[in-house]
Amino acid sequence: MKMGLLGSFSSSSLVAVILVLNVVVVCNGGKTSTFVRKVEKGKHMPLDSDVFRIPPGYNAPQQVHITQGDLVGKAVIVSWVTVDEPGSSTVNYWSENSKEKRQAEGKAVTYKFYNYTSGFIHHTTIRKLKLNTKYYYEVGIGHTPRQFWFITPPEVGPDVPYTFGLIGDLGQSFDSNRTLTHYELNPQKGKAVLFVGDLSYADKDYNVRWDTWGRFVERSVAYQPWIWTAGNHELDFYPQIGENKPFKPFTHRYHVPYRASNSTAPFWYSIKRASAYIIVLASYSAYGTYTPQYQWLQAELPKVDRTETPWLIVLMHSPWYNSYNHHYMEGETMRVMFERWFVEYKVDVVFAGHVHAYERSERVSNIAYNVVNGICTPVKDQSAPVYITIGDGGNLEGLVTNMTEPQPAYSAYREASFGHAIFDIKNRTHAYYSWHRNQDAYAVEADAFWFFNRYWNPVDDSSNN
Amino acid sequence: MKMGLLGSFSSSSLVAVILVLNVVVVCNGGKTSTFVRKVEKGKHMPLDSDVFRIPPGYNAPQQVHITQGDLVGKAVIVSWVTVDEPGSSTVNYWSENSKEKRQAEGKAVTYKFYNYTSGFIHHTTIRKLKLNTKYYYEVGIGHTPRQFWFITPPEVGPDVPYTFGLIGDLGQSFDSNRTLTHYELNPQKGKAVLFVGDLSYADKDYNVRWDTWGRFVERSVAYQPWIWTAGNHELDFYPQIGENKPFKPFTHRYHVPYRASNSTAPFWYSIKRASAYIIVLASYSAYGTYTPQYQWLQAELPKVDRTETPWLIVLMHSPWYNSYNHHYMEGETMRVMFERWFVEYKVDVVFAGHVHAYERSERVSNIAYNVVNGICTPVKDQSAPVYITIGDGGNLEGLVTNMTEPQPAYSAYREASFGHAIFDIKNRTHAYYSWHRNQDAYAVEADAFWFFNRYWNPVDDSSNN
Repeated sequence: MKMGLLGSFSSSSLVAVILVLNVVVVCNGGKTSTFVRKVEKGKHMPLDSDVFRIPPGYNAPQQVHITQGDLVGKAVIVSWVTVDEPGSSTVNYWSENSKEKRQAEGKAVTYKFYNYTSGFIHHTTIRKLKLNTKYYYEVGIGHTPRQFWFITPPEVGPDVPYTFGLIGDLGQSFDSNRTLTHYELNPQKGKAVLFVGDLSYADKDYNVRWDTWGRFVERSVAYQPWIWTAGNHELDFYPQIGENKPFKPFTHRYHVPYRASNSTAPFWYSIKRASAYIIVLASYSAYGTYTPQYQWLQAELPKVDRTETPWLIVLMHSPWYNSYNHHYMEGETMRVMFERWFVEYKVDVVFAGHVHAYERSERVSNIAYNVVNGICTPVKDQSAPVYITIGDGGNLEGLVTNMTEPQPAYSAYREASFGHAIFDIKNRTHAYYSWHRNQDAYAVEADAFWFFNRYWNPVDDSSNN
Repeated sequence: MKMGLLGSFSSSSLVAVILVLNVVVVCNGGKTSTFVRKVEKGKHMPLDSDVFRIPPGYNAPQQVHITQGDLVGKAVIVSWVTVDEPGSSTVNYWSENSKEKRQAEGKAVTYKFYNYTSGFIHHTTIRKLKLNTKYYYEVGIGHTPRQFWFITPPEVGPDVPYTFGLIGDLGQSFDSNRTLTHYELNPQKGKAVLFVGDLSYADKDYNVRWDTWGRFVERSVAYQPWIWTAGNHELDFYPQIGENKPFKPFTHRYHVPYRASNSTAPFWYSIKRASAYIIVLASYSAYGTYTPQYQWLQAELPKVDRTETPWLIVLMHSPWYNSYNHHYMEGETMRVMFERWFVEYKVDVVFAGHVHAYERSERVSNIAYNVVNGICTPVKDQSAPVYITIGDGGNLEGLVTNMTEPQPAYSAYREASFGHAIFDIKNRTHAYYSWHRNQDAYAVEADAFWFFNRYWNPVDDSSNN
């Protein structure tokens, strides 16, 4: 950290000039959508909704979900719940072109949360899969078998096209169902979901809502991996009812391959998938200097080889650049730790949730601050990521519509609508990004942006919207 | 969070003016001591030093230490280690004026750390003590009893005088021994130590140094409580040797009464003692919005009744206001979360360690920042605490001498010497603070400051140095 910019009184005018320049930027905000929507308080869909239907049959597996199971996509973690008895944790699986069934063994866990006792939550990792291959798999062996399928990703490489879906703060409201349907029917066909936290909104009194949520999203996540980020609704910290161990339901229900990236906790980890290197960070774990997450990220970023995975994507729950009044500046505490590294390592894009609305930033950074220099305004920076807030999955609490005014310069586009997004990597230089609001037809892009890769094509892409 | 200060172009000049004012402050730094000292690389005292002497006798208790055991000082946690066999966890105790011995029962724990196995670490809480009373206590019952004593604090109340010692980053170097000796022989006679983190510097390869440190400080901490704060050297996070659980040695060896203040982890908690309310915060745990520490502090601060405990003191390891180059700005990530609350609740003083030197700040705050207003310079604020860095206990790594230049306005006094401090509460309005460097005679005050209480006497005290 260098000091000394303000060596004497004459430098005060320098600060004044710098700030005046920044103020021009501040007053030059982006676009606030004028799209008009009905704002209504969200609520959970009723327990007897068809999307929560319990599959028939004795001890039938329910809430089936998969996620990537290793660093490169040759493994898949298959999870599901049985309720009548533990039953088998075996997964039978076979590739599309083979009739030879293989078996993988796992384990079942349960947990108690206040007056709720979970079913038997099975986690079984299938390993040594062929890449770019369709596999069928079967769970519920011995009682009521159910069959699903997934497609493994292509081999990791710099020009491998791949299409990610982006969903955040999904919940289980009617809006949640619209978001998921829109994602499923989007003609761009996402192959894996990057989920930026806040899954079920079960919270203190409704742990059974973890089960309904698991049944609700099965129609997608049993067939393609969702990459999990922990949000504040995963904390489930309620000392008033004796629930003092953060993340208890989440960690029992959703496993992630954190050990594959040398992480020591399931809240921060990374995976490679096709041409993308995806780093998941934990907004609700410690990140101060020397902490495990800090040490891990410090060691992780230099490992990213952009000649192998050109696209460096970071997921977190609490956004760093958010211009809605709700949750405003909550991300600052992590931003001041890690933003410098994101610029140094040229992160392409950061996806966050938390704010129940949509926003896309300019490429900005705010890393010149040194306590005494007065330089603390976000400035345009082509080495910086684009920050996208996509916490508009449906949630429980409704949309947030109250925005800071005027729209700050760092905010390129903002709109208080529910929706999802697609990040469609074309090759090492270009990715096409689009955001889709639930009110539109499935193919409509309410916001779109051509990403130019920060390593292979680091030219100004700010006019591409 | 209010926005809108920059409603139009004309406001840009407002920012310029504000910053110019701040710059005047920036260029008006405090005093940098010209005291000259020999800077040498620290090292542990040799294992056969007399300060590490093992007490004689079969299974003799060693590393005896006490800390406050409840919210108000009517309980004491007594801890010690036996090495030959578990032995008894009983504490016999009796007040000075009584020959009736009472007994308290506790438990012994052990832990393994890589290739080290601890002795039997006993923790026994004595409860229902009379206040303001001298007690004798005995441990090692049945084998080699050893006897010590302590004095309970007076009843909590607004005008109760009390004298706290301040020590940080002590370690077990020759400098550490000088610091402890100076504290013991200081004629102001501290009655309890507020310890701001980094105890033994045992670190990865020297877990036995937890034992030597325990024996070294016994001569003080067996007789008066030390209030513990976790520093980065308590993290002991070494995944390369399979030690993935942070704080393992510390939490096994040093118990704190965190449950008494409704905390859910031993890294953040509070106690009352005499006229002081002492809040211990965790620099290396999560503190983001919604996290357990955040929720706890949010609920804790409104509980502080300044008519009962006028003096609101916060301990943490990593300082928020530090003008040495080493560890510069590491505290920012926590500062941006909590500083607003410290000003709102008028914290009197914040003690931190971490930086191996001494520094005292002006009363400053830096809470006007709202991302887009460019206001981010610390300004003088009589509602803000004084920040004192007292990480100069002795440590292992030597002094840090490299300071930011020019000395920033927030820094009132700084000096790279080893030492300790005394915070001597006189009544509800006044407390006398002094810092004592090891090179001086025991009574010499190298820095001193009359604290005016922020609730009862909130007038400008900045000229009192």
